[in-house]
Amino acid sequence: MKPTRPPRSTKKPQRPKPTADMVYGINPVMEALKAQRRQIRELLLVTGRRDHRMDALETLAREKGIPVTRMDGEALGDLCGTDHHQGAALHAGALPGMAPEDLLQLAQKRGEEPFIVLLDSIEDPRNLGAIVRTAHCAGAHGVVVPKDRSAQLTGLVSKASAGALEHMPVAVVTNLAKAMETLKEGGLWIAGLDADGECSLFGGDFKGPLGIVVGSEGKGIRPLVKKGCDFIVSIPLKGVVDSLNASVAASLVMYEVVRQRGDGGK
Amino acid sequence: MKPTRPPRSTKKPQRPKPTADMVYGINPVMEALKAQRRQIRELLLVTGRRDHRMDALETLAREKGIPVTRMDGEALGDLCGTDHHQGAALHAGALPGMAPEDLLQLAQKRGEEPFIVLLDSIEDPRNLGAIVRTAHCAGAHGVVVPKDRSAQLTGLVSKASAGALEHMPVAVVTNLAKAMETLKEGGLWIAGLDADGECSLFGGDFKGPLGIVVGSEGKGIRPLVKKGCDFIVSIPLKGVVDSLNASVAASLVMYEVVRQRGDGGK
Repeated sequence: MKPTRPPRSTKKPQRPKPTADMVYGINPVMEALKAQRRQIRELLLVTGRRDHRMDALETLAREKGIPVTRMDGEALGDLCGTDHHQGAALHAGALPGMAPEDLLQLAQKRGEEPFIVLLDSIEDPRNLGAIVRTAHCAGAHGVVVPKDRSAQLTGLVSKASAGALEHMPVAVVTNLAKAMETLKEGGLWIAGLDADGECSLFGGDFKGPLGIVVGSEGKGIRPLVKKGCDFIVSIPLKGVVDSLNASVAASLVMYEVVRQRGDGGK
Repeated sequence: MKPTRPPRSTKKPQRPKPTADMVYGINPVMEALKAQRRQIRELLLVTGRRDHRMDALETLAREKGIPVTRMDGEALGDLCGTDHHQGAALHAGALPGMAPEDLLQLAQKRGEEPFIVLLDSIEDPRNLGAIVRTAHCAGAHGVVVPKDRSAQLTGLVSKASAGALEHMPVAVVTNLAKAMETLKEGGLWIAGLDADGECSLFGGDFKGPLGIVVGSEGKGIRPLVKKGCDFIVSIPLKGVVDSLNASVAASLVMYEVVRQRGDGGK
């Protein structure tokens, strides 16, 4: 007789913390494989599911000599710390560490005016991911976040960025105000986005070398960080409920840079 | 002796479907009380919690002669169908039904060029809420959604809109293409937002009476709806991962209207 298994708890299990940097979700895994900015140890795919997107991941991994392991969805969930893995994950190293200076060099290498996004106190990983996604689409050279007052660069952020995090250079700094000083010494003007700006978003000049600082939805930019900005712009609000979502606000500023620089095509 | 209550299941209970239109969350409840566009039967507040925001809700309700009931958080969760009620909810009627013509009249009443946002297949309530929030902040006169291919106007949408839904006229229509015809007869130009636009977002002319159509993140605008657009604009994308979140994309178009109309202040 088979031994009876203990009844399975109906309570959602406490997931163990993922041990390494796990990248999960079809898009993040695909972009991490393409970008090759992480050391990738293994591609993990769920057993018993096949579709063209999972096949594409497997093919790409094999081309790069990355081992592919099939495992059951529950075990994959334990490794990722979430069930939202869409059947695919990578055992990978962290993204390369960057300094603000590296972001300037990248702009120089591309022959473009620097365009850097600094985030103050964006602690919601979904908002951070959404901002990184737009920053990537808008052609920003990099993102700067403070070590302590920011969501960490986890798999959840990569997923919320639709994988854009895998391509976007992010400098994690101890002191955001100091990073702003460094960027200013590198020739950047720093614009802050806040409610009480001296001019409208559409009145700011974003054509030259630029850093833009975006704060959190509730509290905006911290005073010391704000003091380091060269000018403050505000988004015109015409409603009764006068606040935009942080990632929407950040996106509006980033695309105003695209517009002013004439990078918008026809 | 009191009868023993049955042990509480550790499994998350299946919430009963909320019976009426429940508005929940501090901001949505506050905005619904201010906007007075719903018939409000009762303000429900959680017992044992007091802070200045809940006090403000209670004061406002009492001023308007709306009964206030205190109840425990679990029971409030059952009524709202979610635990994310922040201790406050309204038993309320539906938002008033609107037709596309009503939105045109509203613009006329304000003496402004009509600016109407049409949403095709935005089925995620959080995206719908986020778009309504930006539409409100950008001064749009109304939003048009199809009855079948859209998230319903639930309490979750109001919450995701930070309460902006309570102020924003939304016309729920049977046929989106027909609504577009009605708006065109009313003098509007209809711009669609899609990947293969004939011009960049920043090349479109949004100064006149305007409707903008935004589709879903994956699939864009349906062909029949697209055919009804006068022109299609695209957002310039400069990254490898070439898609923006639907609410971000919609926000960029809405604020380009604000910018072109010179409503951006200084």
